[in-house]
Amino acid sequence: MQIGMMGLGRMGANMVRRLMTAGHECVVYDINPQSVADLAKDGAVATTSMKDFVGKLKKPRAAWLMLPAAITGKVANELAELMEAGDIVIDGGNSNYRDAVDQAVLFSRKGLNYLDVGTSGGVWGLERGYCLMIGGPDEAVKHLDPIFAALAPGAGKDAKPNKAAGTAPYGYLHCGPSGAGHFVKMVHNGIEYGLMAAYAEGMNILKAANAGKEKRAADAETTPLSEPQYYQFDIDLPKVTEVWRHGSVIGSWLLDLTAGALKDDPELSKFGGRVSDSGEGRWTLKAAIDTGVPAPVLSTALFDRFSSRGEAEYADKLLSAMRYAFGGHVEKPKS
Amino acid sequence: MQIGMMGLGRMGANMVRRLMTAGHECVVYDINPQSVADLAKDGAVATTSMKDFVGKLKKPRAAWLMLPAAITGKVANELAELMEAGDIVIDGGNSNYRDAVDQAVLFSRKGLNYLDVGTSGGVWGLERGYCLMIGGPDEAVKHLDPIFAALAPGAGKDAKPNKAAGTAPYGYLHCGPSGAGHFVKMVHNGIEYGLMAAYAEGMNILKAANAGKEKRAADAETTPLSEPQYYQFDIDLPKVTEVWRHGSVIGSWLLDLTAGALKDDPELSKFGGRVSDSGEGRWTLKAAIDTGVPAPVLSTALFDRFSSRGEAEYADKLLSAMRYAFGGHVEKPKS
Amino acid sequence: MQIGMMGLGRMGANMVRRLMTAGHECVVYDINPQSVADLAKDGAVATTSMKDFVGKLKKPRAAWLMLPAAITGKVANELAELMEAGDIVIDGGNSNYRDAVDQAVLFSRKGLNYLDVGTSGGVWGLERGYCLMIGGPDEAVKHLDPIFAALAPGAGKDAKPNKAAGTAPYGYLHCGPSGAGHFVKMVHNGIEYGLMAAYAEGMNILKAANAGKEKRAADAETTPLSEPQYYQFDIDLPKVTEVWRHGSVIGSWLLDLTAGALKDDPELSKFGGRVSDSGEGRWTLKAAIDTGVPAPVLSTALFDRFSSRGEAEYADKLLSAMRYAFGGHVEKPKS
Amino acid sequence: MQIGMMGLGRMGANMVRRLMTAGHECVVYDINPQSVADLAKDGAVATTSMKDFVGKLKKPRAAWLMLPAAITGKVANELAELMEAGDIVIDGGNSNYRDAVDQAVLFSRKGLNYLDVGTSGGVWGLERGYCLMIGGPDEAVKHLDPIFAALAPGAGKDAKPNKAAGTAPYGYLHCGPSGAGHFVKMVHNGIEYGLMAAYAEGMNILKAANAGKEKRAADAETTPLSEPQYYQFDIDLPKVTEVWRHGSVIGSWLLDLTAGALKDDPELSKFGGRVSDSGEGRWTLKAAIDTGVPAPVLSTALFDRFSSRGEAEYADKLLSAMRYAFGGHVEKPKS
Repeated sequence: MQIGMMGLGRMGANMVRRLMTAGHECVVYDINPQSVADLAKDGAVATTSMKDFVGKLKKPRAAWLMLPAAITGKVANELAELMEAGDIVIDGGNSNYRDAVDQAVLFSRKGLNYLDVGTSGGVWGLERGYCLMIGGPDEAVKHLDPIFAALAPGAGKDAKPNKAAGTAPYGYLHCGPSGAGHFVKMVHNGIEYGLMAAYAEGMNILKAANAGKEKRAADAETTPLSEPQYYQFDIDLPKVTEVWRHGSVIGSWLLDLTAGALKDDPELSKFGGRVSDSGEGRWTLKAAIDTGVPAPVLSTALFDRFSSRGEAEYADKLLSAMRYAFGGHVEKPKS
Repeated sequence: MQIGMMGLGRMGANMVRRLMTAGHECVVYDINPQSVADLAKDGAVATTSMKDFVGKLKKPRAAWLMLPAAITGKVANELAELMEAGDIVIDGGNSNYRDAVDQAVLFSRKGLNYLDVGTSGGVWGLERGYCLMIGGPDEAVKHLDPIFAALAPGAGKDAKPNKAAGTAPYGYLHCGPSGAGHFVKMVHNGIEYGLMAAYAEGMNILKAANAGKEKRAADAETTPLSEPQYYQFDIDLPKVTEVWRHGSVIGSWLLDLTAGALKDDPELSKFGGRVSDSGEGRWTLKAAIDTGVPAPVLSTALFDRFSSRGEAEYADKLLSAMRYAFGGHVEKPKS
Repeated sequence: MQIGMMGLGRMGANMVRRLMTAGHECVVYDINPQSVADLAKDGAVATTSMKDFVGKLKKPRAAWLMLPAAITGKVANELAELMEAGDIVIDGGNSNYRDAVDQAVLFSRKGLNYLDVGTSGGVWGLERGYCLMIGGPDEAVKHLDPIFAALAPGAGKDAKPNKAAGTAPYGYLHCGPSGAGHFVKMVHNGIEYGLMAAYAEGMNILKAANAGKEKRAADAETTPLSEPQYYQFDIDLPKVTEVWRHGSVIGSWLLDLTAGALKDDPELSKFGGRVSDSGEGRWTLKAAIDTGVPAPVLSTALFDRFSSRGEAEYADKLLSAMRYAFGGHVEKPKS
Repeated sequence: MQIGMMGLGRMGANMVRRLMTAGHECVVYDINPQSVADLAKDGAVATTSMKDFVGKLKKPRAAWLMLPAAITGKVANELAELMEAGDIVIDGGNSNYRDAVDQAVLFSRKGLNYLDVGTSGGVWGLERGYCLMIGGPDEAVKHLDPIFAALAPGAGKDAKPNKAAGTAPYGYLHCGPSGAGHFVKMVHNGIEYGLMAAYAEGMNILKAANAGKEKRAADAETTPLSEPQYYQFDIDLPKVTEVWRHGSVIGSWLLDLTAGALKDDPELSKFGGRVSDSGEGRWTLKAAIDTGVPAPVLSTALFDRFSSRGEAEYADKLLSAMRYAFGGHVEKPKS
């Protein structure tokens, strides 16, 4: 079937390619004409403006947005002006689920459908397929089933096709009304932060397993290592992550990627340790706070990212200032 | 080759079966004669005492212990009395790595080898293979390579056998001198706690996505839910965990198991929420503390388990007592 | 000077008494006529309706609201209908500072002043004075200086009156435009949660100092206490909190109250450990999340309160379900 | 009465002065002769060697050690060689309470008394008095009562002397057998870390209250601030900490010191934010872990100190490496 894709960045372009491979017709638009041209070469229908884009879509139109969260709302509204009752707009980006709840109300007043589709899979989705978490009206979701099925990984080799039991084993799921898709994706990313932090902390501890070999400063501001004989191991981190991939309880796709990254660069020298976050982790915690659900692991993982960006500095200065004030402790210089 | 196995519980018995399937001869002993008899039926060499057990092992003897951590040290020492220079004792249980560091020193004085082999895989290891993290002297580790290879999952279908590049892709790894195996396994379990908590917190937030539908008490001791319109989702947790298994960033073996558990019992009504811990998470944190490595996610995950067992109660009572003391807040009754 | 007080609960009534003691005229109103009558006996000007209340206030009117956050906005709006340009409404309750930001804009359109005054001091404020954190337009704040001065504790005995250097040493502070007062109070309460949790956790550890004397279960699901000889202390918690009040680094008013509470009831048997939160801790964390400031201690303190109310239960059940799934671990019954 | 003091650093020297002011005779020793000479000028009995020091003490001798934890054990043992049954050695430093448990056993074999006295008060103790947490045999503790009473702050002005009700209101407390004093002091410091972190995080949030005025990068790696209108406050941190000292729930001695530090230097420009820890926080957490007591706030506070020293760097690099691996996210440069 036909689908329009607006926003042809890393995610959008790969999704178009996966859809075309499955035999779907893709009408594409991006403010960068080169991105459009690249996909047109591979068979996509190129368009030169939002109006041209809408004009080339057959009714009921289906337009999928893969845009930065900051501009999705504005673009969706402009698009709505050009569309007609029965048409469908899909937000596949990392938007706040609350926007989808609000947009769906506005869209339904015009007879338009607004779908929010949390899309996980990153740069590997083209090959591996994307995990899709879908929110929106039943009929529109059903209408787009072939698109979702093509984007998703599909059932594993040994699975017998049986969608009657639901589409989850195929890698896509209608999670509920508008907002539900992005809500589930939001929590998915919140979990992701926690998983990543668990591996990262563990590897950091393994790296310190040789602490007993190092010479430590012997001053009043440095806690001595009381039993150095127990910290004499030089652990090979790339090999440890590799072995854990085979038969252990903590095997995962993130571990696969970690093992790959460490194999190439055990010291991770290409990175400085300034960790970004793109919003979902924050919204996950706000949801936990609103609903009174304890989420100390997920929040700690988020706050560590903030700290990695230097945002704890003033708090830390204050701690040193207090220590100086009550105990005369002079801060050791940063190494 | 031949190997002795002492301790024929859930783990030990399955390991014997996996070894025999691979063609190894297993001499087995357990204080429970029935456990011995069960394996003898399947081809293991039965023994009736520790002395008998040692007597039936060929030199250099290799005796693998799969015992509760609390008795491993004592049994290993008794065994050492019966063994001779060149023999090997392997501790495959969840012992503290410090015991292995200490034992290895004592054993080496008698010319005995002490190996610590962290063993992950749980009840699935018989079929899936065990991930082995090995510490100990090079020669003894090398001698037992066929045993490790048989217990481990082995290389995946597409892998070309190439042990020159190391055994990690086969699911076992010599991590370093005595203690290194259990150290790596300890951190492995510390990470496991963090991963599990990340999923559990996330699922708990998803479960609360319908909080806006519930009626809340409207008293001064209950924070109102300010925007209930954003918490109107009834999320199908079994389906969500299933869909995440296909193409998402957070796919993992733990997620596979979680999806399976939720499919059978979405409310998890068979469980009360009293979560045990078996020691490795604690030791991981002590190692982090000793070496000055921040591990806030792993520690939070551990402490949540303590709280699940009611161990925060006195602290919580104290909070209520303070609130009463400064603000006259009367504690709401437990529901 | 004259001031109106609406909402004569625990806080409002005591504030009226403190103001009258300082010689101010208080016009009072509450939906509960008994509360009005009680204060009238002590010299307050009683009123019988909101209209009567406004009618008895001299221009420029000043009406202070001490109401539950849930109804403050509605009442303030009704009051605004009855007031005139130049009049002042003060919200002294635990409202979200965002409401004050929004209300101030609406009020200023009518020429009315909206002040948000975070008020700390609890049931002790009558005697000790209230710490006031004030947000709103300069002129209105200045106008009410005598009221703030009377409510606040005032300068200590040894202080030389010198308001030129600012009013903070007197216990009240104009923190900025509308919303700033409640923002500062919000963070104040966020800090309060953290302080309380620090004491509570510490006391819980002291209470466990005799763990080595207890008999522990010796099963695979219970971590043994490896060095019981170091946990043989029966610590007298009431006396410890008392001694800390004298000369230690951790002396505080909360510690004073804690020592008092423990003296009366060392086991805190009147409390069950279900800890409420009234909103400010939540908003503090949302502010931290929005602005990218790490607040792991404050968030952990908040989430512990959620857990104390049983909100971690589903997450904990999931952990037990996973442990059963991978390791066959059977959950121990709740004691 | 007479007391010997060995270790005349910041703490030891001030304690000697306080004791002499109260009329006690102090025999002093330090490896730095200048420190000895300084106190001799003020009336202390100078000594030139450990032997000389012991020789000048009257039986039963009482020798108080204020030494770095790293050397206390060694010095105590040397001292024990020179002392006789009935003599008393007091460790007033920040030693691990486990050392006191062990030392007391060794000392008691020779008829010597070993006391562990946790001493809080920092550089202010000379003037304010020290809070003393005492562990050791009853008789020895009782014998030294005049010394403890002189070092401690003593009862407040309004208190009626009544030691029958216990000495805690005077600022010193016999907490239990050897080790109990340092155990209580250890937890005291663990709490201190939590309190400090609560204030520091809160102040950091207040500092960010103007985040809505700043221009933020508008790229995919930076979460936008969705409602900047609510973050427009320039909060005066020195004044806020000052006002909180008067009548608020969070008043404390640490807050007094914080307000003082901020008054002098609101930006804390003298500090870099590298926060040391001296051991007690670590031991507190190990005790919590051993006894199964949840301490997530205290542990988070400790781990933040580790992070302030750059110890999270490898973990953070790993997070960036994972983000690059799954999503192609390029790390933003450190600012």
